[in-house]
Amino acid sequence: MARWEPNARQRLVRAALDLFTEQGYEATTVNQIADRAGLTKTTFFRHFPDKREVLFAGQDTHTRLLADAMAAAPGPATPLEAVRAALDALTATFTDDRREFSAKLRSVTAGNIELQERAAFKRGQLAHAMADALRKRGVSEPTASLAAELGIRAFYHAFDQWADPAGQQTLTELARHALDELRAAAAALD
Amino acid sequence: MARWEPNARQRLVRAALDLFTEQGYEATTVNQIADRAGLTKTTFFRHFPDKREVLFAGQDTHTRLLADAMAAAPGPATPLEAVRAALDALTATFTDDRREFSAKLRSVTAGNIELQERAAFKRGQLAHAMADALRKRGVSEPTASLAAELGIRAFYHAFDQWADPAGQQTLTELARHALDELRAAAAALD
Repeated sequence: MARWEPNARQRLVRAALDLFTEQGYEATTVNQIADRAGLTKTTFFRHFPDKREVLFAGQDTHTRLLADAMAAAPGPATPLEAVRAALDALTATFTDDRREFSAKLRSVTAGNIELQERAAFKRGQLAHAMADALRKRGVSEPTASLAAELGIRAFYHAFDQWADPAGQQTLTELARHALDELRAAAAALD
Repeated sequence: MARWEPNARQRLVRAALDLFTEQGYEATTVNQIADRAGLTKTTFFRHFPDKREVLFAGQDTHTRLLADAMAAAPGPATPLEAVRAALDALTATFTDDRREFSAKLRSVTAGNIELQERAAFKRGQLAHAMADALRKRGVSEPTASLAAELGIRAFYHAFDQWADPAGQQTLTELARHALDELRAAAAALD
């Protein structure tokens, strides 16, 4: 029987990100990540299929958060009101102690084309999940996909600002502001 | 000295797509692609770094077409008018004899996660190029990125319809219609 390891998943994510930052993504092995986390390679593979997926560990949680908040939004909420409620729920989980971690994550991803490809795909999946949730609320196409795109775009834009160590505002404030700006730009588009 | 091979690039693309369709992307090797095209492995690697890139061979041309048409649009053109001019230029190159090829390409990509990731990244790059071209026309953010997103979204939506063998309309007609619908949805978003 496998020994129970407290916070194994979180320890692996932090160890991986530290090693990727210190010595590069390419040069880091699964063995090194497990060592740094004080765990075995077997434990690593119980949590992740490979070293790349460690960086996208939060994605399923994010998708679920968005979909749940969207489903819970009041019936008469407009598409963008539902998107705003979903963004609020998602951004609330990015507490200030996660800022440094997020900055490292962003910087590791930016330095590797394979990670950028994965990130672009995951961004698309997040937008699809949000559009799905809007269609379940009775919003038709292309409005559902467009509203979802505005939400995801607001999130990523805000995340880039927030991950900057000099930033002061919360991710929730930044995302709301970005969504307002995008909404105004969409309405004025010609 | 290397022997000159007429249409080598195009022959390699067609051979690769045929093999991917017949026996799957994973199972196909660079040797097999070169053989099928009647060329050598060395010739293959003069044109492509690996078998994956064969499927994205047109991407640089597409980016250039979009940027050039955008730059050539009349000065007073609005952002979406410039996007429409760029889409017209791009879609005009998708003549009817490319429809079957496009359907195969779409189907091979849909069956492989690595190819989907690459496609998502390339989609993002195309949108960035279009937004860049709009900013060069003096369009500010987030309007430039949003108008570009609508253009790329219209293109992919239209491409999916066009690649369907039952389709009758040209890609240009489909893309214009998709852009009109997205524009109306954006204006009405709340």
